[in-house]
Amino acid sequence: MVAGHEESMTSALRVAIIGASGYTSLELLRWLLRHPQAQIAMLVSRKPEQPISEIFPELLGRIELPITPFEPAAIAGQADLVFLCVPHATAMSYVPPLLAAGVRVIDLSADYRLKDAGVYESWYRHAHSDRENLIHAVYGLPDLCAAEIAAAKLVANPGCYPTSAILPLAPLIKAGLIGPQDIIVNSGSGISGAGRNPSAQHHFPERNEAFEAYSIGAHRHAPEMAQALAAFGGRAVDIVFVPHLVPMDRGILSTIYVKPTVAGPVDRALQAWRAAYGQSPFVRIRSSPLPSTKYVLNTNYIDMAICSYGRRWVITSALDNMVKGAAGQAIENMNLMAGYPQGMGLDAKGQK
Amino acid sequence: MVAGHEESMTSALRVAIIGASGYTSLELLRWLLRHPQAQIAMLVSRKPEQPISEIFPELLGRIELPITPFEPAAIAGQADLVFLCVPHATAMSYVPPLLAAGVRVIDLSADYRLKDAGVYESWYRHAHSDRENLIHAVYGLPDLCAAEIAAAKLVANPGCYPTSAILPLAPLIKAGLIGPQDIIVNSGSGISGAGRNPSAQHHFPERNEAFEAYSIGAHRHAPEMAQALAAFGGRAVDIVFVPHLVPMDRGILSTIYVKPTVAGPVDRALQAWRAAYGQSPFVRIRSSPLPSTKYVLNTNYIDMAICSYGRRWVITSALDNMVKGAAGQAIENMNLMAGYPQGMGLDAKGQK
Amino acid sequence: MVAGHEESMTSALRVAIIGASGYTSLELLRWLLRHPQAQIAMLVSRKPEQPISEIFPELLGRIELPITPFEPAAIAGQADLVFLCVPHATAMSYVPPLLAAGVRVIDLSADYRLKDAGVYESWYRHAHSDRENLIHAVYGLPDLCAAEIAAAKLVANPGCYPTSAILPLAPLIKAGLIGPQDIIVNSGSGISGAGRNPSAQHHFPERNEAFEAYSIGAHRHAPEMAQALAAFGGRAVDIVFVPHLVPMDRGILSTIYVKPTVAGPVDRALQAWRAAYGQSPFVRIRSSPLPSTKYVLNTNYIDMAICSYGRRWVITSALDNMVKGAAGQAIENMNLMAGYPQGMGLDAKGQK
Amino acid sequence: MVAGHEESMTSALRVAIIGASGYTSLELLRWLLRHPQAQIAMLVSRKPEQPISEIFPELLGRIELPITPFEPAAIAGQADLVFLCVPHATAMSYVPPLLAAGVRVIDLSADYRLKDAGVYESWYRHAHSDRENLIHAVYGLPDLCAAEIAAAKLVANPGCYPTSAILPLAPLIKAGLIGPQDIIVNSGSGISGAGRNPSAQHHFPERNEAFEAYSIGAHRHAPEMAQALAAFGGRAVDIVFVPHLVPMDRGILSTIYVKPTVAGPVDRALQAWRAAYGQSPFVRIRSSPLPSTKYVLNTNYIDMAICSYGRRWVITSALDNMVKGAAGQAIENMNLMAGYPQGMGLDAKGQK
Repeated sequence: MVAGHEESMTSALRVAIIGASGYTSLELLRWLLRHPQAQIAMLVSRKPEQPISEIFPELLGRIELPITPFEPAAIAGQADLVFLCVPHATAMSYVPPLLAAGVRVIDLSADYRLKDAGVYESWYRHAHSDRENLIHAVYGLPDLCAAEIAAAKLVANPGCYPTSAILPLAPLIKAGLIGPQDIIVNSGSGISGAGRNPSAQHHFPERNEAFEAYSIGAHRHAPEMAQALAAFGGRAVDIVFVPHLVPMDRGILSTIYVKPTVAGPVDRALQAWRAAYGQSPFVRIRSSPLPSTKYVLNTNYIDMAICSYGRRWVITSALDNMVKGAAGQAIENMNLMAGYPQGMGLDAKGQK
Repeated sequence: MVAGHEESMTSALRVAIIGASGYTSLELLRWLLRHPQAQIAMLVSRKPEQPISEIFPELLGRIELPITPFEPAAIAGQADLVFLCVPHATAMSYVPPLLAAGVRVIDLSADYRLKDAGVYESWYRHAHSDRENLIHAVYGLPDLCAAEIAAAKLVANPGCYPTSAILPLAPLIKAGLIGPQDIIVNSGSGISGAGRNPSAQHHFPERNEAFEAYSIGAHRHAPEMAQALAAFGGRAVDIVFVPHLVPMDRGILSTIYVKPTVAGPVDRALQAWRAAYGQSPFVRIRSSPLPSTKYVLNTNYIDMAICSYGRRWVITSALDNMVKGAAGQAIENMNLMAGYPQGMGLDAKGQK
Repeated sequence: MVAGHEESMTSALRVAIIGASGYTSLELLRWLLRHPQAQIAMLVSRKPEQPISEIFPELLGRIELPITPFEPAAIAGQADLVFLCVPHATAMSYVPPLLAAGVRVIDLSADYRLKDAGVYESWYRHAHSDRENLIHAVYGLPDLCAAEIAAAKLVANPGCYPTSAILPLAPLIKAGLIGPQDIIVNSGSGISGAGRNPSAQHHFPERNEAFEAYSIGAHRHAPEMAQALAAFGGRAVDIVFVPHLVPMDRGILSTIYVKPTVAGPVDRALQAWRAAYGQSPFVRIRSSPLPSTKYVLNTNYIDMAICSYGRRWVITSALDNMVKGAAGQAIENMNLMAGYPQGMGLDAKGQK
Repeated sequence: MVAGHEESMTSALRVAIIGASGYTSLELLRWLLRHPQAQIAMLVSRKPEQPISEIFPELLGRIELPITPFEPAAIAGQADLVFLCVPHATAMSYVPPLLAAGVRVIDLSADYRLKDAGVYESWYRHAHSDRENLIHAVYGLPDLCAAEIAAAKLVANPGCYPTSAILPLAPLIKAGLIGPQDIIVNSGSGISGAGRNPSAQHHFPERNEAFEAYSIGAHRHAPEMAQALAAFGGRAVDIVFVPHLVPMDRGILSTIYVKPTVAGPVDRALQAWRAAYGQSPFVRIRSSPLPSTKYVLNTNYIDMAICSYGRRWVITSALDNMVKGAAGQAIENMNLMAGYPQGMGLDAKGQK
């Protein structure tokens, strides 16, 4: 027994968070503090003077680790795996030294999501400085490519909106049940998705009691959805994606309008979902009640439903943008990379 | 002077509200108390014991009228025009005696919106008992049919979601700029749209921090949109309408996906809108920022914008479901019926 | 008739707003656009390039006035009265040239509220540069000192929290019904009270679903309450004031714990209130239901109630911080200064 | 190892929830599903037809236990400990048969909180039918009386407001640092505290954007506070308690005004708190920033701070009413009764 206990201690996974002062970091910490194997070894930020509990008063008494500056060698000495929570463009300058130092990286920015650097550059408006690692980065959707993730040195953690669209759509496209053209993804998100930096747009009295669309035709998650659906579904797709701001903290609901290629009810779609996600620890298929952000709040679940409506099928999917849409999915990726069960420490299905 | 004063008193429009204890009544009262010509003559409800300021504590000291029971002759003796705020099915039993007694009626229920009684019966699941008046009822969209409204004895005040979809779509369909097929109307509404009766679904802790679709393929505003667009646009249309609940009090934002029949940018759509609504006191066309429920909150305005996105045009429209979506539009109808300017008492454009 | 009409046209009051880009200005504009006599003659801000409807998209189509820079002579040429909505410290540099140019001023900042410049300087941490006008400034609580306001050249518009505390307390102190010691004012405010500048503290995801006290013992409205209660109540008072942030847009509720000097129920307190405010167009005394910010939302009313509890009396008062707590009360002051009825254009009691 | 694993299985604590369809039950389930030792053995409700995931769609796929009717013998056969989540008055009829059957009970209703049946009867307006067990019931504040709880057969889980007031006040009263007279407890709560039954008062559009006091002088948590402070502090106290409704889901902030008996700053109060709670797994003492419901949201922590203000000390305390104010504290009690560490499964301080 004693030996077994020591063994589990030595096999613990030492992780670092770089860019520790943002909302994604806070959410990672909440879950990692509860994870049976992960050990939070290091917190890195440009504000190294403060303890993490001054940055996040929520954490007072829960974690006392000091903030340290970004030094790849020091990080590699203390951590086996890094969660990179810095903004895009910064991430691609941090990844090469980290990989070179031998640390595995889960990048929560957008820098390694788009495999085509040209597409990246046209949407993000700056050059991609790390095309070499871009080639080997694995898009981290654990429900669709667990094996690649397990073997990866660098995982690009998916965007929140793309996760909500790709998971329901990929199996249907792959099975040829829906056409790849004229897919409409209408999404709404809680405001935490905009990050922690204050702005006029996200000032409380501007956002409260307000519902509106934004970035129509210009949101960077659109090419990410298109790329992933082409990859996982096997066909080029044509997507119209319109995001909305919803006056709440967390949650994404996507309402997706597709054209079935088969007649009759949605049974075959449900079969395709069950075949794809029957073993998935966090995908839940619903009929009634329909998915709601409330049912997945503070969890790593994604709920999905599908109905027939005239010549369309209408899919709704719900997830918590900070968990399945960011930190939770990153921990799923960590679990796979470390050889743990995918759902470890994340309140997976049938845990009891 | 004295004579003039008396004259303006006698020319005042005496109005009654039947079904005075719901949210629509409260909103009517807020605006009518401020209207320069309307005189609130009578409040009718099944709860005649209470003063209105006990039903609506907001109104303490502002209006002291007692609640009275429903008696058509008494109403006709004291009011020139009635706002009917009772539930559907009840409304159609109240309208015949009111019209027979010589009062003009603006019905805020759904009973006289669908011209085809068979369509009504299949969506509302009960027989239509007043087909005679149904034939003569005018659908009360003042921006599209002011003359018919002015002459009407019975106006069917439009639904909140339909107003948000019909106003932007009708001119585009009529001008042939968009196809009538595969129109997708994705809407979100504040919770006041569900009315004042408490329910498990609209209990605060269920609705707060929740965003979700409901009644997919089953919402009664879908046939209302289809009928009005066929009438005002001149062609049968095929609409997929999905409403959502947004955690806020008021406001509807509709995001509408249409297929242009013309190439190029959205200029011709904007021209069609300007031609249709240039003189409209409450229609505003926006480009940047996009429409938001916040910009129309507590006003009678409807804001609309249109963008090109791939092979689609994307329209967003915003209104306050209690004002332009209900009470405010009803007062526009009242103004037209009484021969007043359409925007009187409603903070119309260019008022100062 | 014609003469009378012309007279009322010529007698219209021309007003300017200086500091036109903040929330108080927006609220002033909403009410002034509807006011039967006020004419919005000029909008002044440091951002003179933009039209006001770009600063406030709510106002599109409603007012087209250009923004102009601050030039006292030009303002005096076009306006009879100015609403000064600039921050404290700035206000005291604008007032002297405006008064010198012959314009009357309603200052919505704190610069002329505290009659003792030393008290001002210790709380606001900078020197008072206009002690001369400070002497003559009138504290603008129209329900307590209408005559002084009517004659004033410079009115200091009260703070939002002080209005909620002074109005219920002053008559009770003056009548000797409560002791001046150990008065506890526990207030909560919607976030619009924090102004329009974005900050980390008022970022939506920080403020939503959060309730907390702030500035305990350090809020600048505490000395304002103490001064006004001493002035209107006739005795020095000892107040503990603790404000809280409530996750909503608008509204202040103050819960005030006082010590009665008389035995028995609260009847004598109610009598004192009725004697003080029987003719007041916006003060409402309630018993059940208790005051709620919801009942005064978007109105100029202040609701108040009083209960006995052990050895204490507990008062609750509610107002909308943007209306009775700022712009609405400023318009009451304007009305008095111009010789109009105090409640003109503000949906006063018994208007119909 | 295998033997060890089996041993830990047999030593698991089997628990039942009676009254499984309310918010407290949902919160218990969320935490118990994650608890390393508790095994959810039985769910009891008057609605035995439905699976729990139909009552709480959040739980789909997470727990499949059927709902069963209330049968004491069956419960005793399957569970070692019961969480009783039924309304007051019902609870006192369930407790005797459960204790007789040999199950230990944590009652989350108010039935066993007030030790004096007469006080109970005057506040709850019905007779107490189980005075025998009332004598032996232990008030379950684990931070103040862990040993009694560990040995108890029946624990009365404290109310949410009382927890927020008793924990900061008890050590100060006991140490004689504050006077027992004229203690003012001003609290605000999220709406989940009102339970899951819909009502007009808690209908979303009534509660959203509303802040108000309620039940002044009439809230049943006032005698509970007084009793516990007399018991833990050793002196009769005189409390004025005013609760408020805050438009958010969860959280209580109490702002407490006390009179120090000692001069000078609050150091001695802080010392008393540290002495009382230094080993407490969930009590956190803060200075800046002040406690906020946001910092304890979805956690079992209670945060407290104290400031000096004139002749008063002002305490603020924050907790999540569903966790430290209900289900979380109940699980602390369960842990103590089962001999586990007090903070097991609750994300206690210094867990990693």
